[in-house]
Amino acid sequence: MPDSDIDEVADAMKYSVYAGGKRIRAYICLAFCRLFGGDVKAALPFAAAIEMIHTFSLIHDDLPCMDDDDLRRGKPTNHKVYGEATALLAGDALALKAFGVVAENPYVSPDIALRAVRALSFASAERGMVGGQIMDMQGEKTALPIEKLKKLQSLKTGALIEVSARLGAMAAGVSDDDRRMLNALEYAKGIGLAFQIKDDILDVTGDEALLGKPIGSDAENSKSTFLRFMSIEEAEKYAKELTEKAKESISGYEGRENLLALADFLLERNS
Amino acid sequence: MPDSDIDEVADAMKYSVYAGGKRIRAYICLAFCRLFGGDVKAALPFAAAIEMIHTFSLIHDDLPCMDDDDLRRGKPTNHKVYGEATALLAGDALALKAFGVVAENPYVSPDIALRAVRALSFASAERGMVGGQIMDMQGEKTALPIEKLKKLQSLKTGALIEVSARLGAMAAGVSDDDRRMLNALEYAKGIGLAFQIKDDILDVTGDEALLGKPIGSDAENSKSTFLRFMSIEEAEKYAKELTEKAKESISGYEGRENLLALADFLLERNS
Repeated sequence: MPDSDIDEVADAMKYSVYAGGKRIRAYICLAFCRLFGGDVKAALPFAAAIEMIHTFSLIHDDLPCMDDDDLRRGKPTNHKVYGEATALLAGDALALKAFGVVAENPYVSPDIALRAVRALSFASAERGMVGGQIMDMQGEKTALPIEKLKKLQSLKTGALIEVSARLGAMAAGVSDDDRRMLNALEYAKGIGLAFQIKDDILDVTGDEALLGKPIGSDAENSKSTFLRFMSIEEAEKYAKELTEKAKESISGYEGRENLLALADFLLERNS
Repeated sequence: MPDSDIDEVADAMKYSVYAGGKRIRAYICLAFCRLFGGDVKAALPFAAAIEMIHTFSLIHDDLPCMDDDDLRRGKPTNHKVYGEATALLAGDALALKAFGVVAENPYVSPDIALRAVRALSFASAERGMVGGQIMDMQGEKTALPIEKLKKLQSLKTGALIEVSARLGAMAAGVSDDDRRMLNALEYAKGIGLAFQIKDDILDVTGDEALLGKPIGSDAENSKSTFLRFMSIEEAEKYAKELTEKAKESISGYEGRENLLALADFLLERNS
């Protein structure tokens, strides 16, 4: 029987995966593999899997029972095009398939591939990204203190950005207790939090056409954001400090220019 | 910070995992490991992961945008207790966590654990279980021919039952081209299809109190079922033939009694 039976869900998966986006996570994964002397080929399947997990989380985040968003990256959200049920299943399939992609990486040892599966699973499940999404929902009901907001962001956005650096380093053969791994994770942690603060700023000051989504939606959804605790100027200063610290954490490594540029780009972006 | 932040999603995950059910998939996984001389310990993490994937699929299947069911195994469905958003995320977390559980199996080689990750990913994603769910939705819009209905069931229910046998055999060190693997898969394929036919019969003839869900829901949802193509008597005969063939596929193996009993139990069950 032809595969046309599953075309609908495959189309819906591709729609969101190829909808663009900055591919920050994939970039970080590849860049750390290269920084630590690895062959970028070995990081590619990991980078692809991380983007699949990220895309799945966006599709589900946009669903009516979650943030109920109509636009993502300037295009109709997945469920607006394919309907809720297909969007739900397309997200599910992306999450499930991602682990097969990690496990099929032919350029790393079975041991490294397994470590990558474990790391990606932990970073994305209830003690990582999904845990952050739950806290985010709770944050809509009650105002979170800033420490909880930081924890929320370290899970919701940070965990996947950190695991991008981790898997890139792994692909280069770096072990978990290696100083290079710690430096990579510190970089990722710093730019991850700066990224989120910048997101909060853009939700107030940004340009809808550039952002590809309506501004002011955080306030509308009563989301906890950093701007509850500081002015825009203070938030900008905080994001800059985090970015500088992130850049310092990889000082001394030759070939780090693109990671420095990425940190600056994320801080200065308009979308 | 305490883990209480993620308690809500962890509770929702446990609610459905511990809601009971027949644990057929876990049973098959453990039974094939034992049948082929493996240590059952080595199959336990695989069996747990498969039940997590199965539970995640049930939680999402029950959501309003899918089958919109209020009862599952005689209890309120996950979203009826925790709300849609938490149920969605609890399902997501179970799917994501399952692969970590497979990859952390300490009783098999990294090579076998990786093969298990790949097999579970393939069996559950768009060319497996999720592909079957999409076909199932399409089957609600248009009447499927019987060959498509068989294909649908081989994906929606069959793929996960087959991978249960596969992972059990893998845990015993059986390779994919071993005759034992082929026999295990033939058994699983047979009882998987018989299981679904029996499900269709029970949806018409069953006892709501025993089933823990309303009968007649397939007809109400215009689902494609085997009873569109045959009488109840013919369907019972067909399920019996499939069961006998499944039992034959493991003839000659010592210690197969529990798998024979399982096949009969599934055929004769009332719920």
